[in-house]
Amino acid sequence: MSIDLRNRLFEQLDQLVLIDPHTHINALDPSSHTLADILGYHYYTELAHSAGMPKGQIEEEGISPKEKVGRLIENLGPISNTIQYSWFIEMAQKLLDFEGDTIDASNWEAFYDSAAEKMSADSWTDTVFNKSRLESVFLTNDFDDPLEGFDSTKYIPCLRTDDLVFHLTNARTKMRLYEATNVEISNVASAREAIGKLFDHFVSRNAKACAISLPPTFAPTKVSDARAETALSHVFSHGPSADEDDQRAVSNFIFWTLAENCQQHKLPFDLMIGVNRKVFPEGVYQGQDLYDSRVSLIQYKDLLNAFPDVTFPISVLASVTNQELVSYSWIFPNVVANGHWWYSNTPTFIQHDCAARLEAIPRTKQIGYYSDMYKMEFALPKFAMYKRILAKVLAENFVIDRSWTEESAVELGTQLLRGNVESIFNVGS
Amino acid sequence: MSIDLRNRLFEQLDQLVLIDPHTHINALDPSSHTLADILGYHYYTELAHSAGMPKGQIEEEGISPKEKVGRLIENLGPISNTIQYSWFIEMAQKLLDFEGDTIDASNWEAFYDSAAEKMSADSWTDTVFNKSRLESVFLTNDFDDPLEGFDSTKYIPCLRTDDLVFHLTNARTKMRLYEATNVEISNVASAREAIGKLFDHFVSRNAKACAISLPPTFAPTKVSDARAETALSHVFSHGPSADEDDQRAVSNFIFWTLAENCQQHKLPFDLMIGVNRKVFPEGVYQGQDLYDSRVSLIQYKDLLNAFPDVTFPISVLASVTNQELVSYSWIFPNVVANGHWWYSNTPTFIQHDCAARLEAIPRTKQIGYYSDMYKMEFALPKFAMYKRILAKVLAENFVIDRSWTEESAVELGTQLLRGNVESIFNVGS
Amino acid sequence: MSIDLRNRLFEQLDQLVLIDPHTHINALDPSSHTLADILGYHYYTELAHSAGMPKGQIEEEGISPKEKVGRLIENLGPISNTIQYSWFIEMAQKLLDFEGDTIDASNWEAFYDSAAEKMSADSWTDTVFNKSRLESVFLTNDFDDPLEGFDSTKYIPCLRTDDLVFHLTNARTKMRLYEATNVEISNVASAREAIGKLFDHFVSRNAKACAISLPPTFAPTKVSDARAETALSHVFSHGPSADEDDQRAVSNFIFWTLAENCQQHKLPFDLMIGVNRKVFPEGVYQGQDLYDSRVSLIQYKDLLNAFPDVTFPISVLASVTNQELVSYSWIFPNVVANGHWWYSNTPTFIQHDCAARLEAIPRTKQIGYYSDMYKMEFALPKFAMYKRILAKVLAENFVIDRSWTEESAVELGTQLLRGNVESIFNVGS
Repeated sequence: MSIDLRNRLFEQLDQLVLIDPHTHINALDPSSHTLADILGYHYYTELAHSAGMPKGQIEEEGISPKEKVGRLIENLGPISNTIQYSWFIEMAQKLLDFEGDTIDASNWEAFYDSAAEKMSADSWTDTVFNKSRLESVFLTNDFDDPLEGFDSTKYIPCLRTDDLVFHLTNARTKMRLYEATNVEISNVASAREAIGKLFDHFVSRNAKACAISLPPTFAPTKVSDARAETALSHVFSHGPSADEDDQRAVSNFIFWTLAENCQQHKLPFDLMIGVNRKVFPEGVYQGQDLYDSRVSLIQYKDLLNAFPDVTFPISVLASVTNQELVSYSWIFPNVVANGHWWYSNTPTFIQHDCAARLEAIPRTKQIGYYSDMYKMEFALPKFAMYKRILAKVLAENFVIDRSWTEESAVELGTQLLRGNVESIFNVGS
Repeated sequence: MSIDLRNRLFEQLDQLVLIDPHTHINALDPSSHTLADILGYHYYTELAHSAGMPKGQIEEEGISPKEKVGRLIENLGPISNTIQYSWFIEMAQKLLDFEGDTIDASNWEAFYDSAAEKMSADSWTDTVFNKSRLESVFLTNDFDDPLEGFDSTKYIPCLRTDDLVFHLTNARTKMRLYEATNVEISNVASAREAIGKLFDHFVSRNAKACAISLPPTFAPTKVSDARAETALSHVFSHGPSADEDDQRAVSNFIFWTLAENCQQHKLPFDLMIGVNRKVFPEGVYQGQDLYDSRVSLIQYKDLLNAFPDVTFPISVLASVTNQELVSYSWIFPNVVANGHWWYSNTPTFIQHDCAARLEAIPRTKQIGYYSDMYKMEFALPKFAMYKRILAKVLAENFVIDRSWTEESAVELGTQLLRGNVESIFNVGS
Repeated sequence: MSIDLRNRLFEQLDQLVLIDPHTHINALDPSSHTLADILGYHYYTELAHSAGMPKGQIEEEGISPKEKVGRLIENLGPISNTIQYSWFIEMAQKLLDFEGDTIDASNWEAFYDSAAEKMSADSWTDTVFNKSRLESVFLTNDFDDPLEGFDSTKYIPCLRTDDLVFHLTNARTKMRLYEATNVEISNVASAREAIGKLFDHFVSRNAKACAISLPPTFAPTKVSDARAETALSHVFSHGPSADEDDQRAVSNFIFWTLAENCQQHKLPFDLMIGVNRKVFPEGVYQGQDLYDSRVSLIQYKDLLNAFPDVTFPISVLASVTNQELVSYSWIFPNVVANGHWWYSNTPTFIQHDCAARLEAIPRTKQIGYYSDMYKMEFALPKFAMYKRILAKVLAENFVIDRSWTEESAVELGTQLLRGNVESIFNVGS
């Protein structure tokens, strides 16, 4: 009974045309050219590496895309249980007409060729958008991205700010900032000017969010202009060897300035909380980051109180932080629970976290899902995974446990998948 | 199959007459007069505020109860998914004869009037007790509550001690203590005398528990009389600006003294662990507290070892602490797992936490549920929610997974709901 | 449907002949002689004590095994809900031909006698191995165990190293080390020599793992030889009163030396992370340890990076650390998720933790279960519990949710239960 019910709910949710509110798509090259773009995704390379494939085999310079795919395929057996592998198969079936359940040494080559042919069509990106029922996607743009050459209502810019907050000691960052704004930052006033110019530029190009990922130790606090002045001066003169206190003060000053600009420009500020970078420095590209799950949203107390007019869609890396996210979204008007991020983007955690959110956060304050994808082909299987789980939670926890009608359950799911993306980010409606 | 089974178990559990072992009921005014007493509950005001309703609209001075309800009803749409909203509807249906599933602008006013009429009956409180199948409720009494004017076997006093432990720096607290005991506390001896008098008074009025809520940073430890003497002297001379170390020593001294009195008077000491007060100071009344889930019961190691004869019914605020609660209850004879508190009082967390407790803590050492309510009308829907989840866990994890008979499962549920409240608090048997 | 499916999967998994990769079996006396060996297991004594049975009654010197069992049986009523009690009943039924569901004052004595008779057979241990479908078990050997008098392919040695890392300040430990190796350790060189000799001895006797349990505060780091030299000297001259920094440096030096030896001898290093010893010092034997769940695998970052060639099967004590274990196993090639340990070895936590692992860790890097038993009779009910949960997860999360065939699901389960034990520990294939 419950399975038929789930399927009925899924079918309805699966009809929706969606906006993906967080991706790493390159608007100038959004979809894949060969399966190497697919299997080169860190989810596959890091899992293959974890299961024993040497990094040198994966990342060898100069091998052709086909050679790379061949090597990876040989090493996917040990990850055939993972949900990530299932994304690959579902994508192959639904987008690339693959028949069967397994892609291995016996059949990959023909599939590689047929996929490459399909992907070479001029209309491939459109095909993917259509089959995935996607209307538009949010980007993740470096602060010095010119944002040119694409339709910014389909590829919606988002100002990513990690470099500004955490790498301003890096001379290259300062130079890029100068090149982007024509402002040489040296003190509080020029930093404010430069950041203001970035926001003006992004907003003029239809940016709909500012975003940042944050380590578990970060606890934003307002620093005085005087303190910021000293700290900036020390950091610019000593670079990465500057005193940690000064570096922290600069991070806090820049972060606070970003929030001020979000307020002024009415941009939501996506906080992605909890990642430690380069925990496994010998890992493959993008497969080096992990986390310390001992983080609390109470670290963001000052920020949330200081900016009541800024909406903060918050993603947490670990499921153990999800209850705090539920509670903070339930109490703070400016906190929104946002998607299921990275290491929490697997079915068991999604189900538990999604169910807890649905029953205690106002329905207007939850963004169901984003794909976080680098290539367009991943939206379909990732959203399909989420929609199946959402249908399961709606079926079991609402229709069965709480006697909701199926119609009401689908309405709630629709709001999470589409309505709230529109209202929270002011897009697509 | 499982759903029929759940329903059968629920029906049996739902017949039980219960004692609610933790509420905030005012014994002199236990039930509601209008829907404003219902919707004024912080669960509704804070969720409405979180969903965008300005605090000023909710808490405007001088508006009538009806005006307040009208305003809130207009703002409940965004919280129609929450379990808290479902409590409201179930209460309306079961206690106030509301027909339908939604109360909104179209129908609230007639319902407001009919509810007010029902609530104005002299017998209303009795009606609520009867329909809710409640025999008695525990109160939460300020230490200076005279405890007069009510039947203390129906409204069972409980000495709440937050003010004594955490606000003795406040001159008002000291004054209230003087007024309640005729003891002017100035040193260790007088503090002991005053607290002893409070316990004598409460016990003479049938108090069956002492209780306190504790911030996640608290880690009780015994301080010497000499240290306590110095700390009290500093705290009384400097008030809230006293040194933090001294304030902490005073908190520890008072807390330890409370435990000593619990031992002497054979009172269980309810510990409600984990709340940070006023995290969102601009929130609505009682909607300002949150938490840092990084707390451990190991902070209570010294206490639990020092008072083997005191029973500590422990509530934890976050589900991530539940496993520690299970393990500490499994090992320490004096630890009892107590209910599902506040931010963990939603179905997903209750189910997970309840299941983990049922399979690893002795069945005699678990208190299933308390309502934490401020008005009597909330017992029915809150206990109903819990009983449904308990029936689900008993059905799936015991009858199906472990081949228990339905009769045994109902016995276990009965013990959690009623038997253990009697034996642990020495009431009602 | 799902229940039949679960049962079919369980039946197949239950046919497998297994190797138990972590136990505390005494190879010279592996199985029980009376029910006192069964009910003397800390899971029963600590739960009976927790439920109110005085320690003095449980551990009274000089009482007969039968008297002890009689006393405990009288006190098992309050723990009849626990999964631990169900192990006892299932074992009684499957190994000792007990008929019925309850063992209590009315029937225990006859059962005690019939059990003692069965256990007195010379073939009893073989009977238990056969009925439990076990081929061999890993031991937990003190570093000075002579490892003589048993078949080390059936009872596979494992070098347990807690004493070396944490109790080298204890003169007795140093003496035992001398007796085991003929090396008097006084400095870095002699410590390395002694430890090398232990590994040589263990490996020569077919040891297949090194193991240690670790407190939540431990964060291994490499110390220089010079620092280790000073620290060893201080620790040996001051004993347990040596400076904490020196004690920590010694622990780190020894721990690192163990890892170096694991690398050299190609032994996996089992890390069992998170236990605080003697939290309840008045508890019964082995019923005194608990934990602080605020621990992170990031504490092991340096170690995991420094020893890429050492496999670290990691067990975590609390389910809240399981997601980190999933993520670290997903990223680090040398991390393996290992079983469900102690306070997480109950159905609710196993199900949640197992499901999260199955969908995100390569299938080659998960060891499904170990019994941790002290007497052979516990393998059957503990593994049966695990296999039922594994069958449930495979049925619901793979066959139903992800459309896997039953055959594929059983293959995955088989790999977790048997194949990975062989490949990771290099045994039994």
